[in-house]
Amino acid sequence: MAGLGTVGRETVRLLRARRAELRERLGVELRLVAVADRAVAREAGALGLPSSVVRYRDPLDMARRAEADLFVELLGGLETPRRFALAALGRGKALVTANKRLLAHAWPEITGAARAGGARLAFEGSVAGGIPVLRALELSFSGDRVLGVDGILNGTTNYILSRGEDGISPRDALKEAQILGFAEKDPTMDLSGQDAAQKLSVLAGLVTGGWLKPGTFPVSGIGSVTARDLSFARERLRMAVRLVASLRFSGKPGEPAVSAVVEPTMVPMGHPLAAVRLQYNAVLVHTASAGDLMFYGQGAGAGPTSSAVLADVFVLARDILGGLPVAAAAAPRRLALTSPDHAVSSFYLRLEVLDRPGALARIADALAGAGVSIAAIHQDPVSGRSEVPVMIVTHRAERGRFENARKRILSLSSVKPDHCAMRMMS
Amino acid sequence: MAGLGTVGRETVRLLRARRAELRERLGVELRLVAVADRAVAREAGALGLPSSVVRYRDPLDMARRAEADLFVELLGGLETPRRFALAALGRGKALVTANKRLLAHAWPEITGAARAGGARLAFEGSVAGGIPVLRALELSFSGDRVLGVDGILNGTTNYILSRGEDGISPRDALKEAQILGFAEKDPTMDLSGQDAAQKLSVLAGLVTGGWLKPGTFPVSGIGSVTARDLSFARERLRMAVRLVASLRFSGKPGEPAVSAVVEPTMVPMGHPLAAVRLQYNAVLVHTASAGDLMFYGQGAGAGPTSSAVLADVFVLARDILGGLPVAAAAAPRRLALTSPDHAVSSFYLRLEVLDRPGALARIADALAGAGVSIAAIHQDPVSGRSEVPVMIVTHRAERGRFENARKRILSLSSVKPDHCAMRMMS
Repeated sequence: MAGLGTVGRETVRLLRARRAELRERLGVELRLVAVADRAVAREAGALGLPSSVVRYRDPLDMARRAEADLFVELLGGLETPRRFALAALGRGKALVTANKRLLAHAWPEITGAARAGGARLAFEGSVAGGIPVLRALELSFSGDRVLGVDGILNGTTNYILSRGEDGISPRDALKEAQILGFAEKDPTMDLSGQDAAQKLSVLAGLVTGGWLKPGTFPVSGIGSVTARDLSFARERLRMAVRLVASLRFSGKPGEPAVSAVVEPTMVPMGHPLAAVRLQYNAVLVHTASAGDLMFYGQGAGAGPTSSAVLADVFVLARDILGGLPVAAAAAPRRLALTSPDHAVSSFYLRLEVLDRPGALARIADALAGAGVSIAAIHQDPVSGRSEVPVMIVTHRAERGRFENARKRILSLSSVKPDHCAMRMMS
Repeated sequence: MAGLGTVGRETVRLLRARRAELRERLGVELRLVAVADRAVAREAGALGLPSSVVRYRDPLDMARRAEADLFVELLGGLETPRRFALAALGRGKALVTANKRLLAHAWPEITGAARAGGARLAFEGSVAGGIPVLRALELSFSGDRVLGVDGILNGTTNYILSRGEDGISPRDALKEAQILGFAEKDPTMDLSGQDAAQKLSVLAGLVTGGWLKPGTFPVSGIGSVTARDLSFARERLRMAVRLVASLRFSGKPGEPAVSAVVEPTMVPMGHPLAAVRLQYNAVLVHTASAGDLMFYGQGAGAGPTSSAVLADVFVLARDILGGLPVAAAAAPRRLALTSPDHAVSSFYLRLEVLDRPGALARIADALAGAGVSIAAIHQDPVSGRSEVPVMIVTHRAERGRFENARKRILSLSSVKPDHCAMRMMS
């Protein structure tokens, strides 16, 4: 086990607490033979590990030398985990990791090393923490076809958005999340949508075998969503706002294609994603035969993540012991990226408009010019401010058309750049 | 494949439509070698099966003679499926079934035959249709501990209860469900809770290895729930009513114990189970490390069930091809049944009370006498009727105490037997 941070320590604790049950189910004992951590002496001591467990300060040293059948990577960062994973897989050793950043950024390299080394690889903990959605995607839709995925994959932003429904400001909600311990001190990756985008990349890789490279698809965070948007959504539209990470699959067998997007999205109150509140995560899977399925649970934290890591260890151990051949290594797939521009939905647009004659007419013109028709428009009473918020809901339109209209509207001199645009799920 | 009804035909169709992908993933082709059905000539003809697929009119004949590695049981009834399953497992053949009734009523016999024959057994389609919750319970919480399960396991009753929230009467909602094709012509098993109880038995068997015998735990259907209860729940209490099937696990390793109950239950509007509407099913799993997880999707229908059946076929085929040993056959477990009487919650009680002096006081006395205190009481204005509905919400109390109070209240001469009692989830 590399990395004795919060998750690593909890995984060691669980592994020992559940020793008897694991032995009964596997027929053999899972033995921790080596640990690596920068502060390995202190952490191994605090965990009370017996002296037979070999201590390494350098994880790479352990990956190259330790006599283990299976390696668990719970290090921080990107470069050390990358080298660790490549070293272990290169030796043909099974690898369990919960590192979404590693998988998103080095997918071809990591899966290529597993193929080349004939090594097993599992990463349930990397997406949606303790929710066993990767195993379901891998095994349970074998006779079905996965058409798409809509995920709430980031607990911090979901906490902020759903606390906003209770009237708590984003700033205060973030502080709460930090005090509760699941938001990072530096929440940039979360708030910007990048964390969700990495997880979406892992999901796309698992379903298609190809690499959905971060930075190649549209990602918006929740920075544009204000208390006004949340209350308008809730009270006037009966909708909740969620940061939704979406995939839609197309292409032919062997030539997969996907469209991907991460963005704040309005969800009807009765929709299962609207019931996902606070730090919870959920993955809604659209399939051809089984219909829509949702997997819901805690997306992060030491308990859920170590539960997923240990399940991966169990499944790989079972496969190793049973001599199950490593999955027939399909050649790495080139994943074609398609534009989400043709996806059709209604849209919400909040603008800050200068109180001038004809301003609304020009906005309506821009929408009409792009072929987008207005379903509802709402302007709050003016109260001595030079700009007034205007909330527009469109009829169903192609995303590309709406984007064109939005750009034209923002170029109007009577419209301030500060705005919020969201698609609306039906 | 035994049984070419709706699910059987759809499974055959899927198996052929997905042939290429399944071959790529398994490395070999899955070949349908024999089918059995009372009307096998007609059904096999309608499916356009080649003449190389052996036709049997008698499924038992097929189970005893067909040269297959894996048998799929999609027959109706109990006795024929039972004999079919025992014959196939007795030959050491893998068996996939979606038959909850068979598993609930013959659990020791079926699992015993699998153990004795060294045969693989899978039954994902038997509970919650296309939702892969059994595989998750089997594999994904290996390093965790499952503390309990709360399931919405019956689509018909969930449809009726959630349409009731839209003001549709139970009778009309049932008709809708029958027209939409997912409610049985004779809905007795659904409305009485027996269908959900069978599925709960399968879930308990999977988690503990023991037999939760139908008829040994409390099961109530939705017959007592009226439009008045649904609207009171929704408007006054902000709660939804769901038929919830619950398990709570206890006992020591190797000596499992469980409490089980199926009953209409009030669920707060923000609770994930309240978002499960219409014919959808969901299973909420409580674990020690991963926290609460929910699996949501369509619980029945040809598409979802055949998707689950084919996933089982894929997983068992993979294990057979890989030579994975059949799971170390733990001895069958005696499952101790514990009483749900000590479970603590608030309760809702709707009574029909004769408009007599002192009637309410006697009810309050009965509750107080059992140690249950009243949180709220609501009596509708009397309008010339001899009895008036009285709605009571209790503070948190042990279920056993509430049950005692309920019995005392119903024995009062001023209280009619017609009533509705529900626990309230928090």
